Amino acid sequence: MTERGSHVLDAAVGVVAEGGLDALSMRTVAATAGVSLAQVQYYFGSKEQLMAATFEHVASAVERAAIDIDVTGEPGQVLRAMLELWLPIDQARARQVRVWLAFTAAAATSRALASVAAELDRELRSGFAELLRSAQESGAVAEAADIDAEASLLLAMVDGLVVQALMLPERRRRRFLERGLRAYLSRLLPDTDTMGGESQR
Amino acid sequence: MTERGSHVLDAAVGVVAEGGLDALSMRTVAATAGVSLAQVQYYFGSKEQLMAATFEHVASAVERAAIDIDVTGEPGQVLRAMLELWLPIDQARARQVRVWLAFTAAAATSRALASVAAELDRELRSGFAELLRSAQESGAVAEAADIDAEASLLLAMVDGLVVQALMLPERRRRRFLERGLRAYLSRLLPDTDTMGGESQR
Repeated sequence: MTERGSHVLDAAVGVVAEGGLDALSMRTVAATAGVSLAQVQYYFGSKEQLMAATFEHVASAVERAAIDIDVTGEPGQVLRAMLELWLPIDQARARQVRVWLAFTAAAATSRALASVAAELDRELRSGFAELLRSAQESGAVAEAADIDAEASLLLAMVDGLVVQALMLPERRRRRFLERGLRAYLSRLLPDTDTMGGESQR
Repeated sequence: MTERGSHVLDAAVGVVAEGGLDALSMRTVAATAGVSLAQVQYYFGSKEQLMAATFEHVASAVERAAIDIDVTGEPGQVLRAMLELWLPIDQARARQVRVWLAFTAAAATSRALASVAAELDRELRSGFAELLRSAQESGAVAEAADIDAEASLLLAMVDGLVVQALMLPERRRRRFLERGLRAYLSRLLPDTDTMGGESQR
């Protein structure tokens, strides 16, 4: 992707964050990005292609952020850092999450978006499974745990908490997420510190 | 709500299930319900009101189904029965869930829908909390458990599993959900039977 294509996708993310998927069109994205309609059409042949590329752009932003996490640390801390990438605890992440949710819902009735969503889910589940497997080998996760099921549950838990948090007033979100995450991780990883550095109750 | 208003809302649910929220308009709903546009306008003054009423209609369908569950049974079984109301394990429920997801995503950018979503979340969390509290009193859930956090997590888990399941091919959904639910409930209610009657692995 050239610089300019990526700039157009950033604009598309902004359009969806503010107005939902209804607001997304080649024209609004061109205006927001400050480029011509013809340029948007050059990069993304159709609205469907623009939508799929925007969804991938949001997904890969989270995946890129995950690369910076130090995975050699204590399993509870690593998992917590991974999960926090998704939580709408600041305006930038709330924005990202609104866009993810809009595309996820649209994926229920669009084949092109469904394949992006399925691939994102698959990658996240396999990343979580890898972390959980090494936590299991070190004894932090119970030996009997069904790792693939636990990876799906971790993804479910974070997706679901995020959806609930978005419906709460902004000031209540952080504590709500903090409390849920702590209860969940303390059960999954019973003997490790999953509190994180800040925001003790 | 009169019979006819409810018939119009059933039609509206069908429109969203097939075509997403984009497809929802006073006109398409009137055509699908076999009534005049004026009648739809009479029941629901604006598209916004029609949307909010359709969302409430889907939410209350699940709540009505929950009333039929025997809550005097073993906690693991009761919880399982409650959660299964949401799982897209047959076409009718997959349809309901697609509609729920479409409205939930739209709620991220619509105040009217957000208040329906927040109220639904609040009711479900409080229903789960009540069940979990009595499970805790009977010793099925750990004494140390943070019940309000666990109720949010239960809702998160089921919402999140449902979203992942929708992205999977239909034939893989039941086993995926079964496996996740079992792993989750066996950790939350360690000593009770949460397997359900059918579909052992």
